[in-house]
Amino acid sequence: MSQELIYTNKVDATLKSIIEGGNYNRVMVLVDSNTRLVALPQLPCLSDAWVIEFPAGDENKSTATLAAVWRAMEDGKATRHSLLVNLGGGVVTDLGGLAAATFKRGIHFVNVPTTLLAAVDAAVGGKTGVNFNGLKNEIGVFAPAQEVIVSTCFFATLSREELKSGFAEMLKHAMLDSHDHFARLLHFDLHDIDYDKLLELLPASLQVKQRIVEQDPTEAGLRKALNLGHTVGHAFESKAMSDGRPVPHGYAVAWGLVAEAVLSHMTLGFPSSDLYSLARFVKENYGMFHFTCDHYDQLIDLMRHDKKSRDGEINCTLLKQCGDPKIDNTITTHDIKAALDIYRDLME
Amino acid sequence: MSQELIYTNKVDATLKSIIEGGNYNRVMVLVDSNTRLVALPQLPCLSDAWVIEFPAGDENKSTATLAAVWRAMEDGKATRHSLLVNLGGGVVTDLGGLAAATFKRGIHFVNVPTTLLAAVDAAVGGKTGVNFNGLKNEIGVFAPAQEVIVSTCFFATLSREELKSGFAEMLKHAMLDSHDHFARLLHFDLHDIDYDKLLELLPASLQVKQRIVEQDPTEAGLRKALNLGHTVGHAFESKAMSDGRPVPHGYAVAWGLVAEAVLSHMTLGFPSSDLYSLARFVKENYGMFHFTCDHYDQLIDLMRHDKKSRDGEINCTLLKQCGDPKIDNTITTHDIKAALDIYRDLME
Repeated sequence: MSQELIYTNKVDATLKSIIEGGNYNRVMVLVDSNTRLVALPQLPCLSDAWVIEFPAGDENKSTATLAAVWRAMEDGKATRHSLLVNLGGGVVTDLGGLAAATFKRGIHFVNVPTTLLAAVDAAVGGKTGVNFNGLKNEIGVFAPAQEVIVSTCFFATLSREELKSGFAEMLKHAMLDSHDHFARLLHFDLHDIDYDKLLELLPASLQVKQRIVEQDPTEAGLRKALNLGHTVGHAFESKAMSDGRPVPHGYAVAWGLVAEAVLSHMTLGFPSSDLYSLARFVKENYGMFHFTCDHYDQLIDLMRHDKKSRDGEINCTLLKQCGDPKIDNTITTHDIKAALDIYRDLME
Repeated sequence: MSQELIYTNKVDATLKSIIEGGNYNRVMVLVDSNTRLVALPQLPCLSDAWVIEFPAGDENKSTATLAAVWRAMEDGKATRHSLLVNLGGGVVTDLGGLAAATFKRGIHFVNVPTTLLAAVDAAVGGKTGVNFNGLKNEIGVFAPAQEVIVSTCFFATLSREELKSGFAEMLKHAMLDSHDHFARLLHFDLHDIDYDKLLELLPASLQVKQRIVEQDPTEAGLRKALNLGHTVGHAFESKAMSDGRPVPHGYAVAWGLVAEAVLSHMTLGFPSSDLYSLARFVKENYGMFHFTCDHYDQLIDLMRHDKKSRDGEINCTLLKQCGDPKIDNTITTHDIKAALDIYRDLME
């Protein structure tokens, strides 16, 4: 999997040189109804590109939109020697990557993520996909973008909530990387964001993901480390959804990181000082996900049905310390309940 | 691209050992309405498999059938650890390969081609695809089957026409390989087929394709050698289709091989003795594709619009001699017309 990551706020000049260097016979750009308005005008190098647009929203991450994009590429006379630029958040890069990877058995594509979450997660690492039959990312392939342009220049129009969602994935990467990296992020000010400083933090964050993905491109083993925080996080997210009070994915991940840090402390000796620092940071910036012991069984049931679990056992990535993940830990019901108790104590 | 080819007429035992060795949680088999009746009953090892069926015919090589197969895999509770066996001709292996490669970002699949054409072409080499919006194989990916079981035990129910269609691709492989290989095929009796002898010929034939594909998995250059016979062949096929008297693809390839051998002789000095032997064999076994000089412009126009051509120039793979292909030859209108003259003289 070769994928070049370019960190820059000179997006137009960078993209221009990629386009000119690639000798493409057509350049197409995929946008959603938001990024067409706020991001596309910032890129004059795409003024002659064939624009393919679909309505913003996760409900459009579908095989129907995928077929519409294929058709639009044909209408734009795309050939195997054409380029698709995916300009948007995770829905655009996931769907556009799949469209490009399957069109005439694969054309080049470049991801230009416009959200922090897409920059640190969806746009990098070669996973593409759309939802199908009610299942998330059910249809997709592993296919890397030729280049990913990582920039913070589109983030000014994001809500604080969207930024924090992306930052939770950065926290995860830092915890998988090293204590230093973790400590550096806890000092970042999410109330008054410095976008240049944020751009400086991104290479280290993405290198964590890249390093893991390169060693395990098709998620055979090690890549499970990237699920840190997500087993419990997904359960929180699903419960919130079923209670009719949905929470942003990144918030659920942040809370999941705290809960799994508790589990890590209980079972692998993860340092309590780091657990406390994490809980404090998450509580201050993301608030708290509230539940009582009456909800434990529901949460445990959701964890058992997580796609990472097999045969009804709860499977988690945990940390011995920052930078030392252990994949495939089987967690007992007893330990989960104890961890949820401690999580509530820490956060309330 | 790693893909194991297994040549055997003990298909059931071979497939059984693949299934047992793979530790799959579900085994599914994709068939069309023909292979369900004639091939599936020959494989007791699949008696417990989840059967997915679609109606036979190229018109069902569509994104609609693809979506139906995805849904059927979900109904069969397939996970990333499941196996799909594609049992059928090229439509089944092309469509099933794409379905498997895109389901949950890719599950294992095994191809069991039931036609000679699929065995020597579609099932091997990692090309998958479905037709879309009137365009052949417009949507697809490069994804190799883990194993391909190559056998002649399903061929007894094929029509003579289907067998000859497949044999034309073998002729092509032989010409790309060596004079010996070419001469061996010209001695094969297509009137009274010896299936064991045919099985013995298949490894050498497929090794030609494998060798080329391994050097160029994504068709960047060398793989174009496999288009030998197809530039003129596709034009014959398209003309026949538009005249309302369609011909089998393999027949068009056989005639295309003769026409392109003429071009090879004219421009690269391909030996006339081999050209005459080929023309005699093709005429005897495939008959002749008839047209007059009034149709030259139509045929040339079709060649110009072939997907292998760029910017309206006709692009062909030609041979200096058997085993020595040259890709990317640009052919002038004048030469094409002269070659079509000679083709008609040779074959009429």
